[in-house]
Amino acid sequence: MKKSYLFAPGPTPIPPQALLEMAKPIDYHRTTESAQLIRSVSKQLQHVFQTQNRVLMLTCSVTGALEATVVNLLSPDDQVIVIRSGKFGERWGEICSAYGVNFQPIDIEWGHSIDPKQVESMLHKMPNCKVVFSTLCETSTGALHDIQGLGQVLDKFDSLLVVDAVSALAADNLEMDNWGVDVVVSASHKGLMTPPGIGLIALSDKAWQATSQSNLPKFYFDLQKALDSAQSGSTPYTPAVTFISALNQSLTLICHEQIKNVLARHSRLAEATRNGIRALGFDCFAQSPANTVTSIRLPNEIDGQTFVKTMRKRHGVTYAGGQAQLSGKIIRIAHLGWVTEQDVVIALAALERGLIETGYSISLGSSITAAQQTFLG
Amino acid sequence: MKKSYLFAPGPTPIPPQALLEMAKPIDYHRTTESAQLIRSVSKQLQHVFQTQNRVLMLTCSVTGALEATVVNLLSPDDQVIVIRSGKFGERWGEICSAYGVNFQPIDIEWGHSIDPKQVESMLHKMPNCKVVFSTLCETSTGALHDIQGLGQVLDKFDSLLVVDAVSALAADNLEMDNWGVDVVVSASHKGLMTPPGIGLIALSDKAWQATSQSNLPKFYFDLQKALDSAQSGSTPYTPAVTFISALNQSLTLICHEQIKNVLARHSRLAEATRNGIRALGFDCFAQSPANTVTSIRLPNEIDGQTFVKTMRKRHGVTYAGGQAQLSGKIIRIAHLGWVTEQDVVIALAALERGLIETGYSISLGSSITAAQQTFLG
Repeated sequence: MKKSYLFAPGPTPIPPQALLEMAKPIDYHRTTESAQLIRSVSKQLQHVFQTQNRVLMLTCSVTGALEATVVNLLSPDDQVIVIRSGKFGERWGEICSAYGVNFQPIDIEWGHSIDPKQVESMLHKMPNCKVVFSTLCETSTGALHDIQGLGQVLDKFDSLLVVDAVSALAADNLEMDNWGVDVVVSASHKGLMTPPGIGLIALSDKAWQATSQSNLPKFYFDLQKALDSAQSGSTPYTPAVTFISALNQSLTLICHEQIKNVLARHSRLAEATRNGIRALGFDCFAQSPANTVTSIRLPNEIDGQTFVKTMRKRHGVTYAGGQAQLSGKIIRIAHLGWVTEQDVVIALAALERGLIETGYSISLGSSITAAQQTFLG
Repeated sequence: MKKSYLFAPGPTPIPPQALLEMAKPIDYHRTTESAQLIRSVSKQLQHVFQTQNRVLMLTCSVTGALEATVVNLLSPDDQVIVIRSGKFGERWGEICSAYGVNFQPIDIEWGHSIDPKQVESMLHKMPNCKVVFSTLCETSTGALHDIQGLGQVLDKFDSLLVVDAVSALAADNLEMDNWGVDVVVSASHKGLMTPPGIGLIALSDKAWQATSQSNLPKFYFDLQKALDSAQSGSTPYTPAVTFISALNQSLTLICHEQIKNVLARHSRLAEATRNGIRALGFDCFAQSPANTVTSIRLPNEIDGQTFVKTMRKRHGVTYAGGQAQLSGKIIRIAHLGWVTEQDVVIALAALERGLIETGYSISLGSSITAAQQTFLG
């Protein structure tokens, strides 16, 4: 008998309402019922994105939605800034390069966060900068970036503010309209508790205006076509109807809890996790840790890759390891989506158990006690 | 109490094994188990594609996989031929145009099929033609194209033969290796009895060689990256794991039945449907009808759009209407995937009922009798 516990930063656990929805017979996608479903999901997404802008659904992995952003906003000669502080910040630059857009990077040490003033001084040197590409939570490090601060800086310039909120949406606060964010990209399989396969994107009026000047080639990811279809509750191409139905269920739970309470829950879960790992003598890898995922810097004597594999095999507990330059050096524990305080206790208890089994000395129970104290307030 | 019957050419009905698979808790996608799953699905897909080439899975709608084909094979100055005989043939051309590739169309009247000799004479005029884009079953008309004949023609030229086998795979025979097809594109939600959201693509060695010369921009749809990942049972970006698990179940059914028997079943279902509608005095719209879907030319007094809507509302029976220039003029009845002889009886019985209810005179029972006679042999 084996039971599985998923603490990776996507896919995240899926509530039973959404799982069971996918087991229902499939329906055709060009019907009144389908249009109603798409409209319902779209409306609920606006609540989560905290926007009046329309949120479009694309059938693709996250990277497809990031690419959609680049190819719809830009032309080859455009000047853009890419904030890079981890694997996903870097991806914005990789996509720009693939399309021949030269970008100006602002490189931050992995685990650190952007100081909006750095962007401000760069913008003074690049008066024609069209877009600043940023990340809300850099999932590879667990660092949270100050998007509200970036929004205040960008308010003084013509540049568009684009935010990869893929993992952090519904975990860390992002007020698209209030903060002046022009494009928010996210996905189904993180805070929205649905399988991977749907990319989400919302554009401000200013961003929609920019799309009309873009001449990068696009077909599948043409957002104007997606918008035209969305206005009649449809999509340009056969969508992943199964996931849209599941997303509707998960969003119903989120909207019932209300986004402000969902964010408060994630804040509490993250704080308890951080207090727990600090009680074990560990540090968060991120200087400003997000509520999405906690990255733990491992002591040299523990190999993170082996640890993650062993935990999965022996205890059915899935953490994520480090990516790229952080491979083996950190582990990442997500507290994201369909997660409760009890789940945090499991994540920490398993961590304690695994550390002792690997021969590393800790005070058994200390992280759980710290987490419980956080919950008790 | 309402029961639904789905006869649209995608999404098609999904077997319970695949539906229930999607209701299981989701797992992380960077694990040994996930790699084994991807390898298992990949191997089964080779049986269905009748190829030794690797079949890649992309997280996207069909059109994404079509675009992947174009952007990985071509450069802007390349000469290509696009066979257009319906909406999906036209799509090849639209994608080429979006990427600045000028194409030479061969236009066939909708409902008709390509004569391979037409392609041969065009190729004599275009000695540097890099790709011929074709379709196995043109889903918008139900017409089957002679891909084996095209393969024989292309054998004398350097051009690559690319086939959109999206709807027809596992319904109409396509022997990728034996017929010399260089690229086959398909999807999860037609003959493969899984929800929409996975595009499938297989390339011959010759096609892989062509990809190294292509300079169209690409990132998400970069097939070389997909191939590199596939070799270790992975994908470049988080895949739709839920659908891959479901596809594994559906493919297990197909491989157990064996592709030759699956094709024979579709042939029988299609023949019975054609005999049924002819017994009602109707014609197939397609001159060489595919086994995928039967398109029925409606008499002028019946509006296809209204008929399809009424059938869905009153009887829970979903046919597809005509697309573009055929809107209102035809209805399309798919017999595709998880479909039995009994399902054909339902499709025809409902058709008879609907026709009489709309005031059109037919001989009640005649189509069912014709179908049953076909099954009895």
